Amino acid sequence: MAGTNPLIRDRDVDFQLYEVHDAEQLCKLPHFAEHTREIFDLWLRSAAKLAREQFYPAFKPMDEKGAELIDGRIKSPEGMAELFDAAVDLGLITAARPESVGGSQLPLTVSVVGYLYLMAGNSGAVGYPLLTAGAAHLIESFGSEALKATFMKRMYAGEWVGTMSLTEPGAGSGLGDITSTATPIEGREAEGAHHIRGSKIFISGGDLDFRDNIVHLTLARRPGDPPGVKGISLFAVPRLRPSAGLEDPSNEDAGEGEIAVEFNDVHTSQLIHKIGWKGLPSLGLSYGEADDCVGWIVGEPCRGLSYMFQMMNEARILVGANGTATASAAYHQSVDYARERKQGRSLDPRQKTKEPIPIIEHPDVKRMLLRQKAIVEASMCLVMTASRYNDVAEHGANEGDRKRARMILDILTPITKTFPAERGFESTSLALQIHGGYGYSSEYLPELWFREQRLNSIHEGTTTIQGLDLLGRKVVANMGQSLMVLMEEIRADIEVARKDGVDEALCEAVKIEVARVGGLTQVLGQRGMSGDVLGMMAHSHDYLCLFSNFIVAWQWLRMAGAASRGLTEAHDPDSEAFYRAKLEAARYWIRTELPDNARLAELCESNEDSYLKVPDSAW
Amino acid sequence: MAGTNPLIRDRDVDFQLYEVHDAEQLCKLPHFAEHTREIFDLWLRSAAKLAREQFYPAFKPMDEKGAELIDGRIKSPEGMAELFDAAVDLGLITAARPESVGGSQLPLTVSVVGYLYLMAGNSGAVGYPLLTAGAAHLIESFGSEALKATFMKRMYAGEWVGTMSLTEPGAGSGLGDITSTATPIEGREAEGAHHIRGSKIFISGGDLDFRDNIVHLTLARRPGDPPGVKGISLFAVPRLRPSAGLEDPSNEDAGEGEIAVEFNDVHTSQLIHKIGWKGLPSLGLSYGEADDCVGWIVGEPCRGLSYMFQMMNEARILVGANGTATASAAYHQSVDYARERKQGRSLDPRQKTKEPIPIIEHPDVKRMLLRQKAIVEASMCLVMTASRYNDVAEHGANEGDRKRARMILDILTPITKTFPAERGFESTSLALQIHGGYGYSSEYLPELWFREQRLNSIHEGTTTIQGLDLLGRKVVANMGQSLMVLMEEIRADIEVARKDGVDEALCEAVKIEVARVGGLTQVLGQRGMSGDVLGMMAHSHDYLCLFSNFIVAWQWLRMAGAASRGLTEAHDPDSEAFYRAKLEAARYWIRTELPDNARLAELCESNEDSYLKVPDSAW
Repeated sequence: MAGTNPLIRDRDVDFQLYEVHDAEQLCKLPHFAEHTREIFDLWLRSAAKLAREQFYPAFKPMDEKGAELIDGRIKSPEGMAELFDAAVDLGLITAARPESVGGSQLPLTVSVVGYLYLMAGNSGAVGYPLLTAGAAHLIESFGSEALKATFMKRMYAGEWVGTMSLTEPGAGSGLGDITSTATPIEGREAEGAHHIRGSKIFISGGDLDFRDNIVHLTLARRPGDPPGVKGISLFAVPRLRPSAGLEDPSNEDAGEGEIAVEFNDVHTSQLIHKIGWKGLPSLGLSYGEADDCVGWIVGEPCRGLSYMFQMMNEARILVGANGTATASAAYHQSVDYARERKQGRSLDPRQKTKEPIPIIEHPDVKRMLLRQKAIVEASMCLVMTASRYNDVAEHGANEGDRKRARMILDILTPITKTFPAERGFESTSLALQIHGGYGYSSEYLPELWFREQRLNSIHEGTTTIQGLDLLGRKVVANMGQSLMVLMEEIRADIEVARKDGVDEALCEAVKIEVARVGGLTQVLGQRGMSGDVLGMMAHSHDYLCLFSNFIVAWQWLRMAGAASRGLTEAHDPDSEAFYRAKLEAARYWIRTELPDNARLAELCESNEDSYLKVPDSAW
Repeated sequence: MAGTNPLIRDRDVDFQLYEVHDAEQLCKLPHFAEHTREIFDLWLRSAAKLAREQFYPAFKPMDEKGAELIDGRIKSPEGMAELFDAAVDLGLITAARPESVGGSQLPLTVSVVGYLYLMAGNSGAVGYPLLTAGAAHLIESFGSEALKATFMKRMYAGEWVGTMSLTEPGAGSGLGDITSTATPIEGREAEGAHHIRGSKIFISGGDLDFRDNIVHLTLARRPGDPPGVKGISLFAVPRLRPSAGLEDPSNEDAGEGEIAVEFNDVHTSQLIHKIGWKGLPSLGLSYGEADDCVGWIVGEPCRGLSYMFQMMNEARILVGANGTATASAAYHQSVDYARERKQGRSLDPRQKTKEPIPIIEHPDVKRMLLRQKAIVEASMCLVMTASRYNDVAEHGANEGDRKRARMILDILTPITKTFPAERGFESTSLALQIHGGYGYSSEYLPELWFREQRLNSIHEGTTTIQGLDLLGRKVVANMGQSLMVLMEEIRADIEVARKDGVDEALCEAVKIEVARVGGLTQVLGQRGMSGDVLGMMAHSHDYLCLFSNFIVAWQWLRMAGAASRGLTEAHDPDSEAFYRAKLEAARYWIRTELPDNARLAELCESNEDSYLKVPDSAW
């Protein structure tokens, strides 16, 4: 089986990158000026090759025999060392980082496609380089030069790895309640050295055996700082600490070569048994059991959570990418299976064959395939849309462009995180369903993707948290101005689709939603402003579903536009079929899913509060 | 954890049995005349006790170390022998069978509640007695007296066990394509003895070590019989065959005591690794490898599939019961967790507490709980509704009643199978979600229920098959007369709810659906009659969703009526809270889910055929 699954289809990547998102346009921005389509494609082909030839074949073995905790150390899954080396060689850790720190300075729009390939091949394995990138990026953005020299450089080089160490047993969604402490070490204040004490849980990749050192970007609270979210600071806490303290950044060779280290009193306390992602163990960590754990503060005190949140957009886009990638691999597997598996006869009385037909010919199987396709490809489009706004937000030509992109990105982030997670799960489950009884067995891969995918609605903020973020913060930010800017973009895209010849009824359906979503948001916002916060937020989940549905319809309209343009120039039957399938998927989404927004909007606006009225004792 | 979960709430059982379904009324039928509410309750309390004290504690250990295949024999999970004995002692196998065959002659309406408790405690473990019951029931209904004496009696006594042996590697949903053969043995025609050859797959409980003999009720094809479904016969194929042939039923002691047996050449070829139900292994069986496998025909030749389908209603109700039970156990666990787990602060600005609050106080958590409650309790109501029609269909006072009940049951069966499976899966997944990161770990049970529940949309006919059955057969049967009879019942229940004081708007909403579903069915039926079968069936899945949604709204209306009645007489706060919660759940379903039927009906009626138009090469 392994090897024949494309994981992510190259033709779709080309379509999305160049026909929908016009990635080449990004090369006109100074930050990306050194790049060309050829450079993008070369890197992406390498990523695809690595995903298909190394990551994917290791996927099932890693699930069967994941990491083990032996005498307090993690034994990493077999082959993980080679995969990590290969990811470093590909430049995965620094793909989107600037050249100034040794990166390739690729747009996220492009690098995220590389992540997609590798995530579709093996979610757990790609976790190590991406977590390392995220942790080092925090130091790059907020850390001192000494921290950069000592930690960031070695992490970007793939010599040391990193983790994000936030969650505690009593503080997951509510990070304001973390209790880990950081006490300044007397005499080492200038260096920012603190003694760290506490426990963390669910730390992905928190220990491993293919690198010696791991730098945990850790949230903790200093004595005397305010309670809650405003008193949390960020620390770099390595497993092995530099014996002579941080390196001197003015030294030209700082951050390169060997450095004397010693054990830093951060231990693995627990290996959590979970139902997927077994290649990337989730651990409990214990800091300072012997009162000898040193962490260096990153940036200013009490700003830890805001630093984390500045990285959160990207982290959430990556969860969306994972949801997309997992659903994509499962989709391709189910197409293959549906073409090969024969069962039943045609419903069509004109086709009275005697032999069983491939199940792909049954209408309800086609429905399950198109539903998957509609979810997978829209998720991919959404992830790339968010990534592109991210690129413009960071490297746009002028402050106006950057600000505008940032506003849109802020709104799109909870959607980009949630839709591929929730609907991607539904999609992955359909892939299992198409396999029937075989789908429930471990001899096929869908059950494994099904288990993997289930995490995406939980990590980096549960779906509940995303709903609160969208309605309670994002759409009402700047007095609704962010939403207005987003709506302008969507309206402009509707006009483009119209000119491209997309079915007028589809354009109109999306346009109606612009008005509906805008009007509803105003009603709910006013309700909140008048003090009825519960009334505003009562249907935050329904609002998230409605908004996602609408945003996905926008993605399909854009893809339909690109497909219509492509169709007029398509000269071979394959291209024609490719574009026609896009048009059908667009029609499917807009005609079958988008109409649910009428019901959802009514719920959001209504005073339907049944769940608030269930007596506490009667659950 | 184990022990505190009620699995199924007793108060709910009382409500459903006596306040909604008036189970005592069944005692007025001659077949059930020996029974009283006290007898029902006594048996159900024993079942609940067995479920909570023995089945449930064994659930997780069985998942961790399921069955093993050692030297061609299955080693059953530890403790399974004791659970099976306890189930036999409870009279589980024959609970609903007549006294004439040693049964308790309980209504299915009552016995199914016992199954619910045990299924909620341990799906896999309860599989053995229920499969044995199903297999023996086939012999009871269609087998010769000699077969009954030899096999059925010992199976009902729990001395031998049974399986349903239908599926083959190339024939699951399409049973017409099975290739196992049965060749009459010369000289033993009168006995009905045949040589069986072939392979079966996915045979649940196909081997075990706590009983010596297993009787496989096996579909096979005799030489010369017609191809397809019309040429399939049913055979009883024991693992150990009576050395001297079948027992003589005229002998008074037939079927009792020891009988000389010898090995019958049916082997376990494969243990399928699956993601749940690990207590009940799913096997490949190989018949007649040494040309020495004897099977006895059950009933008439070529009627095997129709015999199986006469048992199918009950088998499908049991899948619905399993979906209900699994979702119920997960629901109760998530309520417990939501009450204990503290995280975050109140959204309500008037409640500015400093400490984290139990997550059950967050609106979106309440939503997830009410959604589960609405699904679980409606599923239970639906399973009992179908069971009650089953009781009347079999034992009703007169032919008119029986026929009417059979017509309704036929329509309700695919819904009763599918709704608790599909929505029960969603519900179970919400229980996992409420546990956040812990839900993804194996330290809590929701992930296990989540894996278990996933099977219910697949076995005993996939959801696709149920959709085809409902729209293609059941609602159009007898020129739509069955549907008319069902609608009459529903309309009558709406009037009862109205008189009971249920909110007029809710009654009206369900009434509108009677018209909508009826009208839509007529349109689709006529489309089919005019030859456009594809056009009729294109949205069979949407039709199934719409119909289920409506039937569940009916269940909630009936429960709301019973709750309104109860409320007028409730004298204690607990009862009052219980009934109020029912009313809120009814309102929730009818106001949040039922409105989706407008969209679904439009889809079914429309010519929305995007999935049929995707070019074959472009999936």
